[in-house]
Amino acid sequence: MEFGKIVMERYATKKFDGKTVPHAKMDELFELIRFSASSFGMQPWKIKVVTDQKLKDTLMAASWGQPQIGTCSHLLVFCADTNLDALISKMQGQLSKTDMPAESLEGYVNMMRDFVKAMDGAKKLAWAQRQVYLALGNAINGAKSLGLDSCPMEGFNPVEYSRILKLPENIVPTALCPVGYAADKPRAKMRFAKDEIFF
Amino acid sequence: MEFGKIVMERYATKKFDGKTVPHAKMDELFELIRFSASSFGMQPWKIKVVTDQKLKDTLMAASWGQPQIGTCSHLLVFCADTNLDALISKMQGQLSKTDMPAESLEGYVNMMRDFVKAMDGAKKLAWAQRQVYLALGNAINGAKSLGLDSCPMEGFNPVEYSRILKLPENIVPTALCPVGYAADKPRAKMRFAKDEIFF
Repeated sequence: MEFGKIVMERYATKKFDGKTVPHAKMDELFELIRFSASSFGMQPWKIKVVTDQKLKDTLMAASWGQPQIGTCSHLLVFCADTNLDALISKMQGQLSKTDMPAESLEGYVNMMRDFVKAMDGAKKLAWAQRQVYLALGNAINGAKSLGLDSCPMEGFNPVEYSRILKLPENIVPTALCPVGYAADKPRAKMRFAKDEIFF
Repeated sequence: MEFGKIVMERYATKKFDGKTVPHAKMDELFELIRFSASSFGMQPWKIKVVTDQKLKDTLMAASWGQPQIGTCSHLLVFCADTNLDALISKMQGQLSKTDMPAESLEGYVNMMRDFVKAMDGAKKLAWAQRQVYLALGNAINGAKSLGLDSCPMEGFNPVEYSRILKLPENIVPTALCPVGYAADKPRAKMRFAKDEIFF
Protein backbone atom coordinates (compact mmCIF):
# COMPACT_ATOMS: atom_id res chain seq x y z
CA MET A 1 0.00 0.00 0.00
CA GLU A 2 1.41 3.37 -1.02
CA PHE A 3 2.18 5.74 1.86
CA GLY A 4 -0.17 8.38 0.43
CA LYS A 5 -3.03 5.88 0.54
CA ILE A 6 -2.12 4.92 4.12
CA VAL A 7 -2.18 8.55 5.24
CA MET A 8 -5.52 9.25 3.58
CA GLU A 9 -7.27 6.01 4.63
CA ARG A 10 -6.06 5.82 8.22
CA TYR A 11 -8.55 7.23 10.67
CA ALA A 12 -9.21 7.30 14.41
CA THR A 13 -11.41 4.23 14.76
CA LYS A 14 -14.00 4.73 17.49
CA LYS A 15 -15.22 1.13 17.68
CA PHE A 16 -13.66 -2.23 16.82
CA ASP A 17 -15.43 -5.50 16.02
CA GLY A 18 -13.72 -7.45 18.80
CA LYS A 19 -11.93 -9.91 16.49
CA THR A 20 -8.38 -10.90 17.44
CA VAL A 21 -5.50 -9.84 15.21
CA PRO A 22 -3.23 -12.85 14.49
CA HIS A 23 0.00 -12.98 16.43
CA ALA A 24 2.18 -12.91 13.28
CA LYS A 25 0.50 -9.72 12.08
CA MET A 26 1.01 -8.00 15.43
CA ASP A 27 4.66 -9.02 15.26
CA GLU A 28 4.94 -7.22 11.92
CA LEU A 29 3.40 -4.11 13.51
CA PHE A 30 5.80 -4.31 16.47
CA GLU A 31 8.73 -4.27 14.01
CA LEU A 32 7.40 -1.13 12.33
CA ILE A 33 7.15 0.55 15.72
CA ARG A 34 10.50 -0.75 16.94
CA PHE A 35 12.29 0.82 13.98
CA SER A 36 10.81 4.29 14.50
CA ALA A 37 13.17 7.23 14.49
CA SER A 38 14.08 8.91 17.79
CA SER A 39 16.48 11.64 18.83
CA PHE A 40 19.99 10.14 19.20
CA GLY A 41 18.33 6.81 18.39
CA MET A 42 17.67 6.63 22.13
CA GLN A 43 14.21 4.96 21.84
CA PRO A 44 12.97 6.32 25.18
CA TRP A 45 9.81 4.24 25.20
CA LYS A 46 8.22 1.04 26.45
CA ILE A 47 4.97 -0.33 25.10
CA LYS A 48 2.61 -2.35 27.26
CA VAL A 49 0.54 -4.78 25.19
CA VAL A 50 -2.84 -5.59 26.70
CA THR A 51 -5.01 -8.40 25.30
CA ASP A 52 -6.81 -9.68 28.40
CA GLN A 53 -10.47 -8.65 28.15
CA LYS A 54 -10.93 -8.04 31.86
CA LEU A 55 -7.90 -5.80 31.95
CA LYS A 56 -9.07 -3.91 28.84
CA ASP A 57 -12.43 -3.34 30.52
CA THR A 58 -10.71 -2.06 33.67
CA LEU A 59 -8.57 0.30 31.60
CA MET A 60 -11.65 1.43 29.62
CA ALA A 61 -13.09 2.74 32.88
CA ALA A 62 -9.88 4.81 33.27
CA SER A 63 -10.33 6.11 29.70
CA TRP A 64 -13.70 7.88 29.98
CA GLY A 65 -15.39 4.61 29.00
CA GLN A 66 -14.33 5.00 25.37
CA PRO A 67 -15.37 1.81 23.53
CA GLN A 68 -12.14 1.58 21.50
CA ILE A 69 -10.40 0.24 24.61
CA GLY A 70 -12.84 -2.55 25.32
CA THR A 71 -13.51 -3.62 21.72
CA CYS A 72 -9.98 -3.60 20.26
CA SER A 73 -7.87 -6.71 19.76
CA HIS A 74 -4.62 -5.37 21.21
CA LEU A 75 -4.33 -2.24 23.34
CA LEU A 76 -0.87 -0.69 23.06
CA VAL A 77 -0.03 1.63 25.95
CA PHE A 78 2.80 3.86 24.76
CA CYS A 79 4.94 4.89 27.71
CA ALA A 80 7.86 7.30 27.91
CA ASP A 81 10.95 5.89 29.63
CA THR A 82 12.56 8.69 31.62
CA ASN A 83 15.54 6.67 32.81
CA LEU A 84 17.68 8.12 30.06
CA ASP A 85 20.98 7.27 31.74
CA ALA A 86 20.09 3.58 31.64
CA LEU A 87 19.16 3.89 27.97
CA ILE A 88 22.48 5.51 27.14
CA SER A 89 24.35 2.71 28.94
CA LYS A 90 22.36 0.14 26.99
CA MET A 91 23.13 1.91 23.72
CA GLN A 92 26.79 2.08 24.65
CA GLY A 93 26.82 -1.68 25.24
CA GLN A 94 25.18 -2.40 21.89
CA LEU A 95 27.22 0.09 19.88
CA SER A 96 30.49 -1.22 21.37
CA LYS A 97 29.76 -4.50 19.55
CA THR A 98 29.51 -2.76 16.15
CA ASP A 99 32.32 -1.48 13.95
CA MET A 100 31.92 2.03 15.38
CA PRO A 101 35.42 3.31 16.30
CA ALA A 102 35.90 3.49 20.09
CA GLU A 103 36.68 7.21 19.89
CA SER A 104 33.49 8.03 17.98
CA LEU A 105 31.49 5.93 20.42
CA GLU A 106 32.98 7.75 23.39
CA GLY A 107 32.21 11.12 21.81
CA TYR A 108 28.66 10.09 21.03
CA VAL A 109 28.02 8.76 24.52
CA ASN A 110 29.48 11.91 26.10
CA MET A 111 27.27 14.08 23.88
CA MET A 112 24.19 12.17 25.01
CA ARG A 113 25.24 12.30 28.67
CA ASP A 114 25.73 16.08 28.46
CA PHE A 115 22.37 16.49 26.74
CA VAL A 116 20.61 14.52 29.48
CA LYS A 117 22.52 16.21 32.30
CA ALA A 118 21.22 19.62 31.18
CA MET A 119 17.58 18.58 31.67
CA ASP A 120 15.55 18.40 34.89
CA GLY A 121 12.95 15.68 35.45
CA ALA A 122 10.10 17.56 33.77
CA LYS A 123 12.21 18.31 30.69
CA LYS A 124 13.35 14.71 30.42
CA LEU A 125 9.75 13.53 30.50
CA ALA A 126 8.61 16.12 27.91
CA TRP A 127 11.51 15.16 25.63
CA ALA A 128 10.87 11.42 25.95
CA GLN A 129 7.15 11.95 25.37
CA ARG A 130 7.83 13.83 22.13
CA GLN A 131 9.85 10.85 20.87
CA VAL A 132 6.97 8.54 21.81
CA TYR A 133 4.82 10.37 19.27
CA LEU A 134 7.19 9.30 16.48
CA ALA A 135 6.66 5.67 17.50
CA LEU A 136 2.91 6.31 17.80
CA GLY A 137 2.91 7.70 14.25
CA ASN A 138 4.57 4.52 12.98
CA ALA A 139 1.97 2.49 14.88
CA ILE A 140 -1.08 4.15 13.30
CA ASN A 141 0.38 4.27 9.78
CA GLY A 142 1.86 0.80 10.22
CA ALA A 143 -1.47 -0.67 11.33
CA LYS A 144 -3.20 0.66 8.23
CA SER A 145 -0.38 -0.67 6.01
CA LEU A 146 -1.06 -4.14 7.45
CA GLY A 147 -4.84 -3.93 6.88
CA LEU A 148 -5.56 -3.06 10.51
CA ASP A 149 -7.31 -0.14 12.15
CA SER A 150 -6.20 1.88 15.13
CA CYS A 151 -6.86 5.02 17.15
CA PRO A 152 -4.26 7.35 18.67
CA MET A 153 -5.65 8.42 22.04
CA GLU A 154 -4.76 10.84 24.83
CA GLY A 155 -8.07 10.67 26.67
CA PHE A 156 -7.18 8.49 29.62
CA ASN A 157 -5.98 8.83 33.20
CA PRO A 158 -2.22 8.16 33.20
CA VAL A 159 -2.05 7.92 37.00
CA GLU A 160 -4.74 5.25 37.01
CA TYR A 161 -3.02 3.42 34.15
CA SER A 162 0.25 3.39 36.13
CA ARG A 163 -1.52 1.96 39.13
CA ILE A 164 -3.52 -0.67 37.25
CA LEU A 165 -0.56 -1.81 35.15
CA LYS A 166 1.84 -1.60 38.13
CA LEU A 167 4.33 0.50 36.19
CA PRO A 168 7.59 1.69 37.75
CA GLU A 169 7.96 5.44 38.19
CA ASN A 170 10.18 5.94 35.14
CA ILE A 171 7.66 4.34 32.76
CA VAL A 172 5.03 7.04 32.11
CA PRO A 173 1.85 6.25 30.15
CA THR A 174 1.73 8.84 27.38
CA ALA A 175 -0.63 7.77 24.59
CA LEU A 176 -2.81 4.79 23.72
CA CYS A 177 -3.15 2.92 20.47
CA PRO A 178 -5.90 0.31 20.38
CA VAL A 179 -5.49 -1.93 17.32
CA GLY A 180 -7.97 -4.22 15.61
CA TYR A 181 -10.63 -4.28 12.90
CA ALA A 182 -12.97 -1.30 12.65
CA ALA A 183 -16.68 -1.61 13.31
CA ASP A 184 -17.33 1.99 12.28
CA LYS A 185 -16.85 4.10 9.20
CA PRO A 186 -14.40 7.00 8.71
CA ARG A 187 -15.76 10.54 8.49
CA ALA A 188 -14.35 12.99 5.97
CA LYS A 189 -11.00 14.39 7.10
CA MET A 190 -10.94 18.07 8.05
CA ARG A 191 -7.59 19.74 7.53
CA PHE A 192 -6.48 23.36 7.31
CA ALA A 193 -5.53 24.59 3.85
CA LYS A 194 -1.95 24.26 2.65
CA ASP A 195 -1.29 28.01 2.91
CA GLU A 196 -2.54 28.05 6.50
CA ILE A 197 0.14 25.53 7.49
CA PHE A 198 3.15 26.10 5.24
CA PHE A 199 4.65 29.57 5.02
CA MET B 1 6.83 1.50 -1.73
CA GLU B 2 5.62 -0.71 1.13
CA PHE B 3 5.57 0.96 4.53
CA GLY B 4 7.92 -1.68 5.96
CA LYS B 5 10.48 -0.81 3.30
CA ILE B 6 10.06 2.91 4.04
CA VAL B 7 10.66 2.38 7.76
CA MET B 8 13.75 0.25 7.18
CA GLU B 9 15.31 2.40 4.42
CA ARG B 10 14.67 5.83 5.92
CA TYR B 11 17.65 7.18 7.78
CA ALA B 12 18.89 10.44 9.26
CA THR B 13 20.78 11.84 6.30
CA LYS B 14 23.81 13.83 7.45
CA LYS B 15 24.69 15.42 4.09
CA PHE B 16 22.69 16.22 0.98
CA ASP B 17 23.94 16.71 -2.57
CA GLY B 18 22.51 20.21 -2.92
CA LYS B 19 20.14 19.37 -5.80
CA THR B 20 16.73 20.99 -5.74
CA VAL B 21 13.64 18.83 -5.26
CA PRO B 22 11.01 19.69 -7.90
CA HIS B 23 8.11 21.82 -6.73
CA ALA B 24 5.50 19.17 -7.58
CA LYS B 25 7.27 16.56 -5.48
CA MET B 26 7.47 18.89 -2.48
CA ASP B 27 3.76 19.55 -2.89
CA GLU B 28 3.14 15.81 -2.57
CA LEU B 29 5.20 15.77 0.61
CA PHE B 30 3.29 18.76 2.01
CA GLU B 31 0.04 16.83 1.52
CA LEU B 32 1.40 13.82 3.45
CA ILE B 33 2.35 16.14 6.29
CA ARG B 34 -0.89 18.13 6.16
CA PHE B 35 -2.97 14.98 6.64
CA SER B 36 -1.06 13.82 9.74
CA ALA B 37 -3.07 12.79 12.75
CA SER B 38 -3.27 15.14 15.74
CA SER B 39 -5.19 15.16 18.99
CA PHE B 40 -8.75 16.46 18.35
CA GLY B 41 -7.57 16.99 14.77
CA MET B 42 -6.36 20.38 16.01
CA GLN B 43 -3.19 20.47 13.86
CA PRO B 44 -1.30 22.78 16.26
CA TRP B 45 1.58 23.37 13.90
CA LYS B 46 3.03 25.69 11.28
CA ILE B 47 5.86 24.73 8.99
CA LYS B 48 8.31 27.29 7.68
CA VAL B 49 9.79 26.26 4.33
CA VAL B 50 13.28 27.63 3.68
CA THR B 51 14.89 27.33 0.25
CA ASP B 52 17.01 30.50 0.07
CA GLN B 53 20.68 29.47 0.31
CA LYS B 54 21.77 32.51 2.31
CA LEU B 55 19.03 31.94 4.84
CA LYS B 56 19.88 28.22 5.07
CA ASP B 57 23.50 29.16 5.75
CA THR B 58 22.45 31.61 8.46
CA LEU B 59 20.28 28.96 10.07
CA MET B 60 23.08 26.39 9.80
CA ALA B 61 25.15 28.63 12.08
CA ALA B 62 22.28 28.42 14.61
CA SER B 63 22.29 24.60 14.26
CA TRP B 64 25.82 23.75 15.42
CA GLY B 65 27.00 24.09 11.83
CA GLN B 66 25.43 20.79 10.85
CA PRO B 67 25.82 20.36 7.08
CA GLN B 68 22.32 18.95 6.54
CA ILE B 69 20.96 22.50 6.88
CA GLY B 70 23.18 24.09 4.27
CA THR B 71 23.16 21.24 1.75
CA CYS B 72 19.47 20.27 1.72
CA SER B 73 17.02 21.35 -0.93
CA HIS B 74 14.18 22.43 1.37
CA LEU B 75 14.55 23.04 5.09
CA LEU B 76 11.26 22.46 6.92
CA VAL B 77 11.12 24.17 10.31
CA PHE B 78 8.37 22.42 12.26
CA CYS B 79 6.84 24.85 14.73
CA ALA B 80 4.25 24.29 17.44
CA ASP B 81 1.35 26.76 17.37
CA THR B 82 0.34 27.51 20.95
CA ASN B 83 -2.60 29.75 20.09
CA LEU B 84 -4.99 26.86 20.60
CA ASP B 85 -8.05 29.07 21.04
CA ALA B 86 -7.56 30.46 17.54
CA LEU B 87 -7.18 26.93 16.16
CA ILE B 88 -10.43 25.83 17.82
CA SER B 89 -12.26 28.83 16.32
CA LYS B 90 -10.86 27.96 12.90
CA MET B 91 -11.96 24.33 13.27
CA GLN B 92 -15.40 25.48 14.37
CA GLY B 93 -15.69 27.59 11.25
CA GLN B 94 -14.68 24.72 8.97
CA LEU B 95 -16.77 22.06 10.71
CA SER B 96 -19.87 24.27 10.64
CA LYS B 97 -19.76 23.99 6.84
CA THR B 98 -19.88 20.15 6.97
CA ASP B 99 -22.88 17.91 7.69
CA MET B 100 -21.89 17.65 11.36
CA PRO B 101 -25.05 18.28 13.43
CA ALA B 102 -24.93 21.68 15.21
CA GLU B 103 -25.35 19.99 18.59
CA SER B 104 -22.42 17.61 18.06
CA LEU B 105 -20.29 20.49 16.85
CA GLU B 106 -21.11 22.54 19.93
CA GLY B 107 -20.25 19.60 22.20
CA TYR B 108 -16.99 18.99 20.39
CA VAL B 109 -15.96 22.64 20.53
CA ASN B 110 -16.83 22.86 24.23
CA MET B 111 -14.78 19.73 24.94
CA MET B 112 -11.75 21.25 23.18
CA ARG B 113 -12.23 24.60 24.97
CA ASP B 114 -12.35 22.83 28.36
CA PHE B 115 -9.27 20.79 27.49
CA VAL B 116 -7.32 23.92 26.57
CA LYS B 117 -8.58 25.93 29.55
CA ALA B 118 -7.14 23.33 31.95
CA MET B 119 -3.58 23.86 30.63
CA ASP B 120 -1.10 26.63 31.47
CA GLY B 121 1.27 28.02 28.85
CA ALA B 122 3.99 25.42 29.42
CA LYS B 123 1.52 22.54 29.17
CA LYS B 124 0.00 23.97 26.00
CA LEU B 125 3.43 24.16 24.41
CA ALA B 126 4.39 20.62 25.49
CA TRP B 127 1.09 19.28 24.15
CA ALA B 128 1.40 21.09 20.83
CA GLN B 129 5.01 19.96 20.48
CA ARG B 130 4.04 16.32 20.94
CA GLN B 131 1.55 16.67 18.08
CA VAL B 132 4.30 18.20 15.93
CA TYR B 133 6.19 14.92 16.20
CA LEU B 134 3.32 13.10 14.48
CA ALA B 135 3.63 15.51 11.56
CA LEU B 136 7.42 15.13 11.66
CA GLY B 137 7.01 11.36 11.45
CA ASN B 138 4.86 11.72 8.35
CA ALA B 139 7.50 14.03 6.89
CA ILE B 140 10.41 11.59 7.25
CA ASN B 141 8.43 8.52 6.17
CA GLY B 142 6.70 10.54 3.45
CA ALA B 143 10.00 11.85 2.06
CA LYS B 144 11.35 8.29 1.71
CA SER B 145 8.10 7.15 0.06
CA LEU B 146 8.65 9.86 -2.58
CA GLY B 147 12.27 8.89 -3.21
CA LEU B 148 13.65 11.71 -1.08
CA ASP B 149 15.93 11.76 1.94
CA SER B 150 15.51 13.69 5.16
CA CYS B 151 16.79 14.13 8.69
CA PRO B 152 14.72 14.74 11.81
CA MET B 153 16.71 17.20 13.95
CA GLU B 154 16.52 18.76 17.39
CA GLY B 155 20.06 20.15 17.45
CA PHE B 156 19.41 23.83 16.85
CA ASN B 157 18.82 27.01 18.81
CA PRO B 158 15.07 27.66 18.78
CA VAL B 159 15.45 31.20 20.16
CA GLU B 160 17.85 32.09 17.33
CA TYR B 161 15.53 30.47 14.79
CA SER B 162 12.63 32.58 16.09
CA ARG B 163 14.69 35.72 15.76
CA ILE B 164 16.09 34.94 12.30
CA LEU B 165 12.73 33.84 10.89
CA LYS B 166 10.87 36.66 12.69
CA LEU B 167 8.32 34.28 14.15
CA PRO B 168 5.49 35.52 16.37
CA GLU B 169 5.57 34.35 19.99
CA ASN B 170 2.96 31.60 19.56
CA ILE B 171 4.91 29.90 16.74
CA VAL B 172 7.66 27.91 18.48
CA PRO B 173 10.39 26.16 16.46
CA THR B 174 10.33 22.54 17.66
CA ALA B 175 12.11 20.27 15.18
CA LEU B 176 13.82 20.53 11.80
CA CYS B 177 13.45 18.38 8.75
CA PRO B 178 15.88 19.13 5.93
CA VAL B 179 14.77 17.36 2.73
CA GLY B 180 16.71 16.56 -0.41
CA TYR B 181 18.88 13.87 -1.97
CA ALA B 182 21.44 12.13 0.23
CA ALA B 183 25.17 12.48 -0.36
CA ASP B 184 26.02 9.97 2.35
CA LYS B 185 25.25 6.32 3.08
CA PRO B 186 23.08 4.91 5.87
CA ARG B 187 24.71 3.08 8.75
CA ALA B 188 23.17 -0.12 10.15
CA LYS B 189 20.21 0.66 12.42
CA MET B 190 20.70 -0.04 16.10
CA ARG B 191 17.46 -0.88 17.91
CA PHE B 192 16.71 -2.48 21.25
CA ALA B 193 15.35 -6.04 21.10
CA LYS B 194 11.61 -6.60 20.88
CA ASP B 195 11.36 -7.92 24.45
CA GLU B 196 13.18 -4.84 25.75
CA ILE B 197 10.44 -2.60 24.31
CA PHE B 198 7.19 -4.56 24.39
CA PHE B 199 6.01 -6.05 27.65
